[in-house]
Amino acid sequence: MKIGIIGTGIVGNTLGTKLVQLGHEVKMGSRTANNEKAAAWVATAGKGASQGTFADAAKFGELNFNCTGGMVSLEALKAAGAENLKGKILIDVSNTLDFSKGMPPTLAIVNDNSIGEEIQKHFPETKVVKSLNTLNSNLMTNPNAVGGGDHDIFMNGNDAEAKQKVKELLKSFGWKEEHIIDMGDITTARGTEQLLPIWIRLMGLFKTPMFQFKIVR
Amino acid sequence: MKIGIIGTGIVGNTLGTKLVQLGHEVKMGSRTANNEKAAAWVATAGKGASQGTFADAAKFGELNFNCTGGMVSLEALKAAGAENLKGKILIDVSNTLDFSKGMPPTLAIVNDNSIGEEIQKHFPETKVVKSLNTLNSNLMTNPNAVGGGDHDIFMNGNDAEAKQKVKELLKSFGWKEEHIIDMGDITTARGTEQLLPIWIRLMGLFKTPMFQFKIVR
Repeated sequence: MKIGIIGTGIVGNTLGTKLVQLGHEVKMGSRTANNEKAAAWVATAGKGASQGTFADAAKFGELNFNCTGGMVSLEALKAAGAENLKGKILIDVSNTLDFSKGMPPTLAIVNDNSIGEEIQKHFPETKVVKSLNTLNSNLMTNPNAVGGGDHDIFMNGNDAEAKQKVKELLKSFGWKEEHIIDMGDITTARGTEQLLPIWIRLMGLFKTPMFQFKIVR
Repeated sequence: MKIGIIGTGIVGNTLGTKLVQLGHEVKMGSRTANNEKAAAWVATAGKGASQGTFADAAKFGELNFNCTGGMVSLEALKAAGAENLKGKILIDVSNTLDFSKGMPPTLAIVNDNSIGEEIQKHFPETKVVKSLNTLNSNLMTNPNAVGGGDHDIFMNGNDAEAKQKVKELLKSFGWKEEHIIDMGDITTARGTEQLLPIWIRLMGLFKTPMFQFKIVR
């Protein structure tokens, strides 16, 4: 599949590399066409990796990932272009971590709203599926790295067919079917995004980001 | 030990009954001395159970539980009296679930504050330990009821000695030492209180409140 990655940070890098390894063609988008971080990623990711602007990546992708920070996601996605995202799945991995008031960060959108919902509102013709925002990027693409993969990943989105496709993609990353929890529509992203405050504090406590939530029933 | 329970709801009932079963003397406090719900609890909980006002319960307890809803906790604890709570551990089980804006509820205190912190600020001479606010009351006192007890319970508080005593109490409820996570000072209650938004949505999804979080490392 042709996949667009919006954002050149560690999350975009790790997801992009895994997707190339799985045989997908991946274009990493940034503000400028010749971004150095994207170029470095293309040089190491191997055959199938390319780069361009946010709009180039979104247009290229049959499915796109939002890997920008939640504070700038709407702006980046507007640059990517509603017409380029239209009718496609957008997997939203972002969190609105606001570091401007000191550490640990707060959430800029929280409680009665979520960045997942905001993106869906701004891009009504895009099928937004929130996922993978509650864990370290290395675990996103290698869930077996802790606890033999015996932990859960959440999905939120309005479109059942889109969530089914995201589920298949997650399975290709190594997530077992029984560990993929479809929470419901995009408003349930309020729940998963509010895992970040405890995630950040647990990372400080454990001195490692290699952990993930499991819902024990 | 003599224990005061502030609040007559299902959480206070379940905790109070377990504490009586464990051999503690427990006084359940309510707004009025002769509250019917407290009387019904005293009648069923057995020897060691008694009732009174919020102030009676707090004065009686060498350790107290705040089992009121987070929206009214400060008011209830003021009625209990700072002088009656002074120098003692207060285990805060509350959440500021605000149902006034429809379902699912939002949190009235969230993101850059928590009800745990607010209680500590209002009662600086009380040792506030937040715990047990992230799960159903039946699981609080019987963790083995799901997954053989293989899930975690969180604690937040400023006083290490107080947290050690709360840990012993949790162990007497059936929590294994390795599943009791001391998150740090009371500000870390922001993390555990923000588990409620996902908890509520998971309860809707699973159609049961019998589940709890585990941090898989």
